[in-house]
Amino acid sequence: MALDHDKATADALAITERILASDGLEGFSARKVAREAGISVGTLYNLFGDTDTLIRQANIRLLDRLAIAGATALSEIAGGEMLDVRARLLKLAHVYAGFVEENRTAWGSLLAFNRAIAGRDTPDWYRARQETLFAIIADVLSETPLGRDREKLVTAARALWSSVHGIVTNAYRGVDDNRLDQSTWDQIDLLVTMFVRGVERA
Amino acid sequence: MALDHDKATADALAITERILASDGLEGFSARKVAREAGISVGTLYNLFGDTDTLIRQANIRLLDRLAIAGATALSEIAGGEMLDVRARLLKLAHVYAGFVEENRTAWGSLLAFNRAIAGRDTPDWYRARQETLFAIIADVLSETPLGRDREKLVTAARALWSSVHGIVTNAYRGVDDNRLDQSTWDQIDLLVTMFVRGVERA
Repeated sequence: MALDHDKATADALAITERILASDGLEGFSARKVAREAGISVGTLYNLFGDTDTLIRQANIRLLDRLAIAGATALSEIAGGEMLDVRARLLKLAHVYAGFVEENRTAWGSLLAFNRAIAGRDTPDWYRARQETLFAIIADVLSETPLGRDREKLVTAARALWSSVHGIVTNAYRGVDDNRLDQSTWDQIDLLVTMFVRGVERA
Repeated sequence: MALDHDKATADALAITERILASDGLEGFSARKVAREAGISVGTLYNLFGDTDTLIRQANIRLLDRLAIAGATALSEIAGGEMLDVRARLLKLAHVYAGFVEENRTAWGSLLAFNRAIAGRDTPDWYRARQETLFAIIADVLSETPLGRDREKLVTAARALWSSVHGIVTNAYRGVDDNRLDQSTWDQIDLLVTMFVRGVERA
């Protein structure tokens, strides 16, 4: 029977996503994915080129889901209450933290992969998808005086993203409770509040 | 020959530090440390109680070196030029980023250990040493209006620490060059500048 390339590609990707979300990056292997997809390892490589590409494609699905969650949260605001820049950024931070909580192992796999490939070239198609996430933040910040300076706007969006990421990553997590504690939210709130205040009074 | 407890303890700790700094956390094993120290695994456990404690003691040495580097940088300032809060925080951020670069594998081991023990109880003696690092930042921030609110001061110090950590962690690193690129410094500079401006205009 001839191989259905589209189906095999979709299957391998779905299997990779499931492994990264349940067992983490260390649970991933080309052999395991090929076996579950009912194809040979050689065929898997033919379909994706290399395992980095396969993992990146799975990670992109995760990033896309986060981007959609962020955009949805903002569009809900746009349809109702008027929120200022600070409140919208805090909303995005909540979406991000909630997403990381709900997709803890998958997100950990993504970060572990980023660490593992540090120093290797990141393909443009992957980088572009990451930029989409910064663009959501940049869009909110564009209403502040930063909007007059495109380069600074991008720098600010990346800085805020990484800052919230750093605070969430360093957060203390209890044994039975994976949720962020109040002290972590206080840090995010204070950081975003002071940053926006500083930007608006530039 | 009776075991010299102090020497065996010091040896095991130095060996652990070396392993964490050269091979990373995954290169560490109690068996390896015991063998290199010329003691049995049982004796190693008698000396440290468990491997978490051994690793924490090695990590504390690293944190202490970072604390000393930060305090030294600030005392050099105190002895000469007058720098404002923003400039001193940026100096600390430079010290931090430089330290992470110079101790890349050891720092990666510390972060990997923190991830691995997430959810487990952190002993007070370890937590207290981590607080020392936040205290250096809090001390600089105490000259701003935040100094009037002890709780907010601590929150701000932790937020800034984690923010710079997040920016440094997410930084792009080239293949041949481990140093942070200009865009990363721009992010740190903008974040600290806007934060301090926001705080001072509270």
